[in-house]
Amino acid sequence: MKTILIQLDTDPLPSTFDRVVAVDADVDHLFSYGGVTPEQVEPLVHGAMFTRGPKDLKHTAIFIGGSNVAAGEQLLAKVQKVFFGPVRVSVLMDSNGSNTTAAAAVLSARKHLTLSGCEAVILAGTGPVGQRAAQILASEGARVRVASRSQARAAQTCDAIRAVVPSAQLVPVAAGNAAETRTACEGATLVIAAGTAGVELLSVETRAQLPALKVAIDLNAVPPAGIAGVEVFDKGTDRGGVACYGAIGVGGLKMKIHKGAIRQLFESNDAVLDTAAIYQLGLDLV
Amino acid sequence: MKTILIQLDTDPLPSTFDRVVAVDADVDHLFSYGGVTPEQVEPLVHGAMFTRGPKDLKHTAIFIGGSNVAAGEQLLAKVQKVFFGPVRVSVLMDSNGSNTTAAAAVLSARKHLTLSGCEAVILAGTGPVGQRAAQILASEGARVRVASRSQARAAQTCDAIRAVVPSAQLVPVAAGNAAETRTACEGATLVIAAGTAGVELLSVETRAQLPALKVAIDLNAVPPAGIAGVEVFDKGTDRGGVACYGAIGVGGLKMKIHKGAIRQLFESNDAVLDTAAIYQLGLDLV
Amino acid sequence: MKTILIQLDTDPLPSTFDRVVAVDADVDHLFSYGGVTPEQVEPLVHGAMFTRGPKDLKHTAIFIGGSNVAAGEQLLAKVQKVFFGPVRVSVLMDSNGSNTTAAAAVLSARKHLTLSGCEAVILAGTGPVGQRAAQILASEGARVRVASRSQARAAQTCDAIRAVVPSAQLVPVAAGNAAETRTACEGATLVIAAGTAGVELLSVETRAQLPALKVAIDLNAVPPAGIAGVEVFDKGTDRGGVACYGAIGVGGLKMKIHKGAIRQLFESNDAVLDTAAIYQLGLDLV
Repeated sequence: MKTILIQLDTDPLPSTFDRVVAVDADVDHLFSYGGVTPEQVEPLVHGAMFTRGPKDLKHTAIFIGGSNVAAGEQLLAKVQKVFFGPVRVSVLMDSNGSNTTAAAAVLSARKHLTLSGCEAVILAGTGPVGQRAAQILASEGARVRVASRSQARAAQTCDAIRAVVPSAQLVPVAAGNAAETRTACEGATLVIAAGTAGVELLSVETRAQLPALKVAIDLNAVPPAGIAGVEVFDKGTDRGGVACYGAIGVGGLKMKIHKGAIRQLFESNDAVLDTAAIYQLGLDLV
Repeated sequence: MKTILIQLDTDPLPSTFDRVVAVDADVDHLFSYGGVTPEQVEPLVHGAMFTRGPKDLKHTAIFIGGSNVAAGEQLLAKVQKVFFGPVRVSVLMDSNGSNTTAAAAVLSARKHLTLSGCEAVILAGTGPVGQRAAQILASEGARVRVASRSQARAAQTCDAIRAVVPSAQLVPVAAGNAAETRTACEGATLVIAAGTAGVELLSVETRAQLPALKVAIDLNAVPPAGIAGVEVFDKGTDRGGVACYGAIGVGGLKMKIHKGAIRQLFESNDAVLDTAAIYQLGLDLV
Repeated sequence: MKTILIQLDTDPLPSTFDRVVAVDADVDHLFSYGGVTPEQVEPLVHGAMFTRGPKDLKHTAIFIGGSNVAAGEQLLAKVQKVFFGPVRVSVLMDSNGSNTTAAAAVLSARKHLTLSGCEAVILAGTGPVGQRAAQILASEGARVRVASRSQARAAQTCDAIRAVVPSAQLVPVAAGNAAETRTACEGATLVIAAGTAGVELLSVETRAQLPALKVAIDLNAVPPAGIAGVEVFDKGTDRGGVACYGAIGVGGLKMKIHKGAIRQLFESNDAVLDTAAIYQLGLDLV
């Protein structure tokens, strides 16, 4: 029986990136929909639920993507509401690559650090990738500082993470200027920058004042770098005693996790591949 | 040569249901279009007509679907107008599953009854599935009462069926309330309910007053049932001497007919699979 | 590794014609987008560039189509702007079949004439197919008269061709009525009509006054013919000493070139199949 992946994308034109990855993860048939809203989800999911018998349902699955992570989360909630009982198919949500990128970033850090108990800072920690990286680190026992220009928003993000990881050790910190950023990063062994493309979050000068730093990961692919001095192709590159990763350096592992997640969709008919499940899958891969 | 099915769907997003069935009927490539209007049909059909040689044309076919059956009929008419002479491809119209569902319903009844000469009632007989079930029963020689809240509309439906099946024995009947419904069904051995989801057309009390009834088929999948007491999974289930079928009970056969119809598209380049052809195909399958 | 063709079509519904040809050229997966504007191109192309490694990039390619050739050229320019360095995929632009049709028309003429030094007329030479046929003939050393109702527009077209083929021998000529058309065609051995469907550009009477004519090619598929007396299926048919080709007579070769061009896309990751490249490919095929 052929595998079918139903791609629900919240952008008007469904992502070619996600389509190529699906093909390379051996999906036989890809049904791609763009501009999908929660109101349109029901018949699309019914068509997945009511066409193949119980034993064959695992050969159909749903992928939710698009550049807007919040919109993707709404689709995921709606999709799960349409299912009833065992009549369901597996679902992967990875809008804007948020889950696979966060998992790959943390797994890259894990090559150099013991995560449990380590001091970590997520710059732009309230964005979709930052929040997910913070959640994963917290689930591994790291002490995570969630940094944002607004401490209030950082605190909201910490609350949201605690709802998923009750044992999380989180501190919301302000990092709206160089002095705040330095204080936010003081004593941290890991810094992950998950900000908007082309915005420098950590300057060369501030970095020079962080002697404890061991791993710096910048997920921004467009110059200037989010962490000054980190190159986009860096992949564990030693720069003055700091292991550095750039967006493309993390990208190879992200891609493996993305493909692995799509393959995992077809192993059962009831998987919901969220942040934790995707990280677990990454752990199994590395 | 690869088989290609061009799916023209009148809904904005082309049906995943129809796409999965096409894959499971071994279509190699599926070109899916949503929100298709008659004005857009010509170039889409020309692309099917003018790309493969005469001997290979049978490897390309057209499927017309969507929730609006009248809109699907308009597309079918337009598609046939674009063809000229032998330069054509096969077409299947099954908007809202209307043809395959009607065929499966009648074939289910046929397991229990001799259709020729039997007294049959179609509740909500003016809707797309109801009208098609009535047409098929009439073509088998049944005496069919087409029931509707409005007798005038029922009469229109009877006229439409007679245009296709000149020998049809049809009676338009009003069934706007319990008393009328009881009169409409009196003496009938077969009742098929083809109404809107969630509307009860035949109550427990009325049913109790129909001793001649042998087969009750309810095509409504959403509770409450169109025929009180029929369960959605019923598949010939004996309930007080009446063989009962629910929507899912009929669904397995509907699915076989649907897949069979798609396979048949690729056996020639000039098939037009309409109500009669789809029923004939179902007869061959059972 | 599976081949992927990304079809960017400027019409609302992506062409079924181009999709069938892609399938018949053995493309494994076709990602089809309709109504594509230059503003939407960047993420679509990034998804092609950033998903497969350098050695595998040649298994992904882009096809640009649609009925509006100018809109297709804008997409092609935008696509090439998104690439950087060796991170790119091959692209074919054939909006409205313009490049493959022009190449097939010239290659048909070449069976009967030495193109270098021959006197050729392109009626409706300012349209997309006409301009491309003129360019190809000029690149082969023919002396090409570009005919149009407006001599000014013909002159503009000649300038545009000279920008691509500096050695081109071109003469803009007016052909707004029978007398002008006769003068325009006097002494020519080749006439190609590339006008709007259903418009006669060369009458029987005028043709009778062109004793030098050896090859007449009419690319119009809808009656009346663009060149009176040429039949749509003509394929080198001798009509009073003139080898005649109609739209379908040229169509077989056009189709071979179209398929060959798609196959060529997957031989490297940096081809840009424009008018000259597509003609060269046609030369290799015949």
